[in-house]
Amino acid sequence: MRVLITGAYGFIGRYVARYYRDMGYTVIGMGHGIWDQKEYNSWGIDFWCECDITMDNLVSYAKDIEIIVHCAGSGSVSFSIEKPMLDFERTVWTTHFVLEYIRRFAKDTKLIYPSSAAVYGLADQLPIKEDSPLTPISPYGVHKKIVEELCQMYAKQYGLSVIVMRLFSVYGDGLKKQLLWDACRKIEKNSNVFWGTGAESRDWIHVKEVAKLMYMAREKANERCPIVNVACGQNVMIASVLNCLFSSFQTSLKPEFGGQVNPGNPEHYLADIQQIGQWGWQNKISLEDGIKEYVKWYKKDGKS
Amino acid sequence: MRVLITGAYGFIGRYVARYYRDMGYTVIGMGHGIWDQKEYNSWGIDFWCECDITMDNLVSYAKDIEIIVHCAGSGSVSFSIEKPMLDFERTVWTTHFVLEYIRRFAKDTKLIYPSSAAVYGLADQLPIKEDSPLTPISPYGVHKKIVEELCQMYAKQYGLSVIVMRLFSVYGDGLKKQLLWDACRKIEKNSNVFWGTGAESRDWIHVKEVAKLMYMAREKANERCPIVNVACGQNVMIASVLNCLFSSFQTSLKPEFGGQVNPGNPEHYLADIQQIGQWGWQNKISLEDGIKEYVKWYKKDGKS
Repeated sequence: MRVLITGAYGFIGRYVARYYRDMGYTVIGMGHGIWDQKEYNSWGIDFWCECDITMDNLVSYAKDIEIIVHCAGSGSVSFSIEKPMLDFERTVWTTHFVLEYIRRFAKDTKLIYPSSAAVYGLADQLPIKEDSPLTPISPYGVHKKIVEELCQMYAKQYGLSVIVMRLFSVYGDGLKKQLLWDACRKIEKNSNVFWGTGAESRDWIHVKEVAKLMYMAREKANERCPIVNVACGQNVMIASVLNCLFSSFQTSLKPEFGGQVNPGNPEHYLADIQQIGQWGWQNKISLEDGIKEYVKWYKKDGKS
Repeated sequence: MRVLITGAYGFIGRYVARYYRDMGYTVIGMGHGIWDQKEYNSWGIDFWCECDITMDNLVSYAKDIEIIVHCAGSGSVSFSIEKPMLDFERTVWTTHFVLEYIRRFAKDTKLIYPSSAAVYGLADQLPIKEDSPLTPISPYGVHKKIVEELCQMYAKQYGLSVIVMRLFSVYGDGLKKQLLWDACRKIEKNSNVFWGTGAESRDWIHVKEVAKLMYMAREKANERCPIVNVACGQNVMIASVLNCLFSSFQTSLKPEFGGQVNPGNPEHYLADIQQIGQWGWQNKISLEDGIKEYVKWYKKDGKS
């Protein structure tokens, strides 16, 4: 059993790699990132192809693959606003190569695509169901939506087995961006002021749970291209998350909020997670435990 | 006043070029197609750039342009099914260059984008309004939809002035594909059997009217990226169109129908055309006259 994980050097990709390895798969990783064999082996990756995701490279390295988890792509709203075309290339273009590779050379290979809650944009009703209207408000969200449309088109038109997973706020050890990371960095610089009001909320899920769901998803991909929310089904305010992190950090600082709004970021997210519930999935990592673990990781390895 | 028309060698592009030229514009044409100066001048094109639509070429040739009408792109459902990635490149990728060129180098240049009724897919309610659900059923339609999303994103995110025009069944002298063309060719080969049942319907509009609307559209482009149907608001059955064409051709043959369905082609199309009505546009070329003219053109120049 062989799985190809693109973008396996990235935060989510490496957890997915490790999960599949633990379940007995041979794991091929592909994408950018310089690491030595010991390190990528420790993340469950048996073979590492340091290269672009192109048709040629897929033809060369993706033979006899049962599943492709396409984690490669851009991962930043602000980057996408600044460089929309580059963001498009990283997100849309690479996925298109994967879809076209499967269509032409590997019809039985399943595709698991991690999309994003950013496709929903400003949700007018919570919790957000998968069939809610899609009104993304950033190039990042628009590009993820476009990829979803390509996934559905290839599934329906050509019979590819695909599943789209809309990830909400994924966090965990190793994530060197976004709220928890910024917060740890700020505490170290004796700073404590954040954007927004603190009342904004997100639906958090630990990256290890995401990896598990991306493993379970391999049996759910089909030519109807199901789309599933990936979250815990609880919206937690930014202020609560930061209070928990500050207290785990054992700092005397308290988080404060500047009130200004971050463009391209909606105020509230809360996922309807009925579908993954029906898969039999239950969250095992509480947000509190996850944050504690994150702070521990940060203090030990995060600063380098 | 300068306009750039991409794909100006193509069927619609050349009529748009001539219309803008007649209204006093200097017309720059860009795209593929080998023709001598006398010929492209006769179509209203002052300068012809035989090249791909890339950022470099736009930077080189699109200086001081008031309007870009981006007619370049793929134009065949069956081609898109056979070669989806190439279709994507021709349709999505070229438009992306145009949008990015305007964003980075020519913020005041307006973009007029000819999309297609194919974005609607199988319409469940006629007439089709612009805010009807979009469920395209071919790669061609999906790619046009993706371009629309990029147009809207660039307009809203970066303030570009854009308008999207959803063309229904455009016909006219020079069109060497689709129903009228196939019919003339069949008659010449003494053949008269067509796909479908003849009861399928389309909303036809003559290419000269389309060119006029693409001229009127220059004043309607803005950063809300309006989307307008381009059609006559009448659905005419394939059988009626063919009866008219056969009679114009003065053949003793009568059209017959095999009953088989063409994949990727919906059964009925009828546009709600309130918006272009509000612009003050009224159709001046009846389908009957347009077909007669087409047959005349075919007999004189169409066979070469």
